[in-house]
Amino acid sequence: MRQFILFSRQGQTSGNFRNLRDAGRLDLVSHCIISSFFLSHKTRKEIILHIILNGPPNPPLHLQIKGEELHDTRTDEETIGHILKNVLSGKEHPGFKLSKKSFQEIVKELSQENEIYVLEEKGENIKNQELKDNSVFIIGDQVGLPKKEELFVLRYGKKLSLGKTVYLAADCITIINYNLDNR
Amino acid sequence: MRQFILFSRQGQTSGNFRNLRDAGRLDLVSHCIISSFFLSHKTRKEIILHIILNGPPNPPLHLQIKGEELHDTRTDEETIGHILKNVLSGKEHPGFKLSKKSFQEIVKELSQENEIYVLEEKGENIKNQELKDNSVFIIGDQVGLPKKEELFVLRYGKKLSLGKTVYLAADCITIINYNLDNR
Repeated sequence: MRQFILFSRQGQTSGNFRNLRDAGRLDLVSHCIISSFFLSHKTRKEIILHIILNGPPNPPLHLQIKGEELHDTRTDEETIGHILKNVLSGKEHPGFKLSKKSFQEIVKELSQENEIYVLEEKGENIKNQELKDNSVFIIGDQVGLPKKEELFVLRYGKKLSLGKTVYLAADCITIINYNLDNR
Repeated sequence: MRQFILFSRQGQTSGNFRNLRDAGRLDLVSHCIISSFFLSHKTRKEIILHIILNGPPNPPLHLQIKGEELHDTRTDEETIGHILKNVLSGKEHPGFKLSKKSFQEIVKELSQENEIYVLEEKGENIKNQELKDNSVFIIGDQVGLPKKEELFVLRYGKKLSLGKTVYLAADCITIINYNLDNR
């Protein structure tokens, strides 16, 4: 199972918002959902995306999305935003699950049976790395991982680079998926 | 100069819409704009994106976006949607230019000084192709290029493949950019 962890510093932890971007960059979170799961006319079943929301009013929240259970979605930001709003308001949506776990708890949990990689410019290039099926890729938001979380995570995993260009979080997911699709 | 041509079968050709998706999938067009130009905290100057809108009420329209002139944008669909609405209503936005040209006219024009590639599953894999700086990549929307346009374009260019997986249009652009970034 391929997994991603997105650390969102300020992603809002309630559904009480009118605009995705102003809700702590939930627009970025939505793009990451799209790039994790959507292909042309089909979804990727073999992926789990973990989003850690650290914004007000109720941080941290762990939003887990499972490709194999995902239904009733579309590839536009507005649709994904509606789903986020519903789920963060306590409603259910197929494939989405909320829990009260922190980034460190999730990393520790997943490190037991998976290889952990942290996206960093200075890491080993993804092209030179033999990636296993049970890989977990950790991705920061527009600011990147806080130093504390980065140090924590490096106790469990390795740095991985996509080259010299620094991509948007959602594009990092697309590029990782592409590299794994073409192993 | 790296260039992309996005053929949008039904992209609306007026700013009179309330919802991007229902306006002939202008959500997909917006995602392609984001993936063409945006990196983490910077934009790509060296890219031109040509979008051919073939939807009502005034097709075809050629929307040209130049990276080096692009300003006052953000990476969310809502912001890009507002800009599209303004430009399609006749207002100006830095980097955006509208003209009354068809897909075939644009392809013919660009073929004079550039290498033309059409994205197709059965093409040569992008990894085995020596791509030049002056490459133009032609990308279809969710339905793909109409047969007539595909046959036309193959008189000027070659088929290029991203592997066996069929990606969303915006992700195709991300993956092409990634391959060129890492030549």
